[in-house]
Amino acid sequence: MAKDYVVAVMGATGAVGQEMMQTLEKRGFPVRELRLLASARSKGKKLVFKGKELTVEELTEKSFAGVDIVLASAGGSISKQFAPYAVKAGAVVIDNTSAFRMDPEVPLVVPEVNPEDIFTNKGIIANPNCSTIQMVQVLKPLHDYGKIRRVVVSTYQAVSGAGQKAINELLNEIEAVMQGKPYTRTVFPHQIAFNALPRIPQSGGIEDGGYTNEEMKMIKETKKIMHDPSIQVTATCVRVPVVRGHSESVNVQTDKDISVELARELLSKTPNVVVLDDIHNEKYPLATDASGKYETFVGRIRKDDTVNYGLNMWVVSDNLLKGAALNAVQIAEKLIGK
Amino acid sequence: MAKDYVVAVMGATGAVGQEMMQTLEKRGFPVRELRLLASARSKGKKLVFKGKELTVEELTEKSFAGVDIVLASAGGSISKQFAPYAVKAGAVVIDNTSAFRMDPEVPLVVPEVNPEDIFTNKGIIANPNCSTIQMVQVLKPLHDYGKIRRVVVSTYQAVSGAGQKAINELLNEIEAVMQGKPYTRTVFPHQIAFNALPRIPQSGGIEDGGYTNEEMKMIKETKKIMHDPSIQVTATCVRVPVVRGHSESVNVQTDKDISVELARELLSKTPNVVVLDDIHNEKYPLATDASGKYETFVGRIRKDDTVNYGLNMWVVSDNLLKGAALNAVQIAEKLIGK
Repeated sequence: MAKDYVVAVMGATGAVGQEMMQTLEKRGFPVRELRLLASARSKGKKLVFKGKELTVEELTEKSFAGVDIVLASAGGSISKQFAPYAVKAGAVVIDNTSAFRMDPEVPLVVPEVNPEDIFTNKGIIANPNCSTIQMVQVLKPLHDYGKIRRVVVSTYQAVSGAGQKAINELLNEIEAVMQGKPYTRTVFPHQIAFNALPRIPQSGGIEDGGYTNEEMKMIKETKKIMHDPSIQVTATCVRVPVVRGHSESVNVQTDKDISVELARELLSKTPNVVVLDDIHNEKYPLATDASGKYETFVGRIRKDDTVNYGLNMWVVSDNLLKGAALNAVQIAEKLIGK
Repeated sequence: MAKDYVVAVMGATGAVGQEMMQTLEKRGFPVRELRLLASARSKGKKLVFKGKELTVEELTEKSFAGVDIVLASAGGSISKQFAPYAVKAGAVVIDNTSAFRMDPEVPLVVPEVNPEDIFTNKGIIANPNCSTIQMVQVLKPLHDYGKIRRVVVSTYQAVSGAGQKAINELLNEIEAVMQGKPYTRTVFPHQIAFNALPRIPQSGGIEDGGYTNEEMKMIKETKKIMHDPSIQVTATCVRVPVVRGHSESVNVQTDKDISVELARELLSKTPNVVVLDDIHNEKYPLATDASGKYETFVGRIRKDDTVNYGLNMWVVSDNLLKGAALNAVQIAEKLIGK
């Protein structure tokens, strides 16, 4: 395919929207025209793409005429409202919100794991949740070798997953705490500075049994992406005072023995996964190192002998890139056969 | 017993030593005389106890004449070197270091879990590792009801576990990062500001299989304190940019079904454990709330249906108090029959 595409970014002014624009540019996605769509509030705002200033337009039902690909990251309710218009106008929507992820008609894709699902789309392709994407990237090669039976995951998630406002809140609150000054929170329900909040998202979204939305996403999305409802996942999702980069403590049980050496070998061969595993030389994945990188990093690989065929791992990736913007752009690349 | 005791604090100038002095005072421990022992470097330093200024003495082999109880927190090698002299002088050493914890001759005690072991001591009683103490406090009532089979724990540990220098490093590094200035680390091997380090302690201490000392402590100490080598524990220990208060994501599998309601009931009845579990009203344990408190807090209690009889919990406690100084003073209290 030697075509250039009309691409629209829905939610262009948000933290992920900005990363989507940069990722399209950095990876040389063949964009003929880029349309920046956002709420009326952001209308008229100028953003730079490939050195040119573009003006943000207000997102309306009529925004999609002539658009080939929509990268959507303006919130679930916005996607639910506007994606159908984009599809009707002939565009393919790659949706970064949770609006359609569990819709059986909508493929949920991590390009390294289930790229084939891209081509079953009926106009919408869902981008999984950030914490799920990096986990399934490392689960996949292990699953292919020894079938994953059960996963116990605890996350250490960066505040940027809650947007630019959350980053500002963390930084402002840290400053206030260090200066002994009061601080009025608007994003998190409790102090995030110098704390660990076992609660993502920040409000609402509690399902039966007391699991948060974020935890249920890891549980349900993993089965769908891996095409295996038998994979048992239990999750505890926690926000930590990190700006960028999600870390995960992942305990897996497989059907077949996988030695540490074999796990390293299988993971080393996995595209876009980097094994960083030499604790004697202080080498293990870190959020600050993963920030700005495209890869997902895995280390601290240890046998867990409390079960047959158990492994512990530490998995880190940039939540705004592989966890959001990059994965969406990679889907778009596969879609156009790039 | 209506006696007053001569108590010595070994490592009086350290973060835990300071908490030991305050805890003795706050809980009205019957101290006739308090001796503050530290390295030659701190000799002559003045510290206040019950409104009186006391002078730090240099720790020597002869420091223990007339001492009844030694609270030791000056590092493992110091305890190994000096505890025998204290015992020879007739004192009981309550040792907060890892020097004697796994010694079969030395009881390892959490007073709410195995108080009876205190009286088997031959001069030394070991205080468990901070991350173990708060975990076994919540495991115990569940184990008594339904026998714990397996535990998968991931920790979110405060920097104060590595002492005052580590607290200073976190605060100074945060300031440097926020101002875009360079910072030279002396405590942690990598940036702790805005990061999660899957590595405790900060250097050395890697056992076979790639587990860190801290992880092995949780695995081994749990079995010893609970008097049950069949309890399978696997651990991933992580340092987070929190000053005070360790949080733990604890996944347990029991031999008998324990509903969330029953778990809450069993834990509510456990001394010094507080159930804080109402996510709909944003109630769950937090490091910042637990800081300065004597209790261990548990919440986010959820059924884990990926196994028979699984539960997830979030456990938080002050690592310098219940995780160290308070637990040691509680042992001393039991020891004197208080």
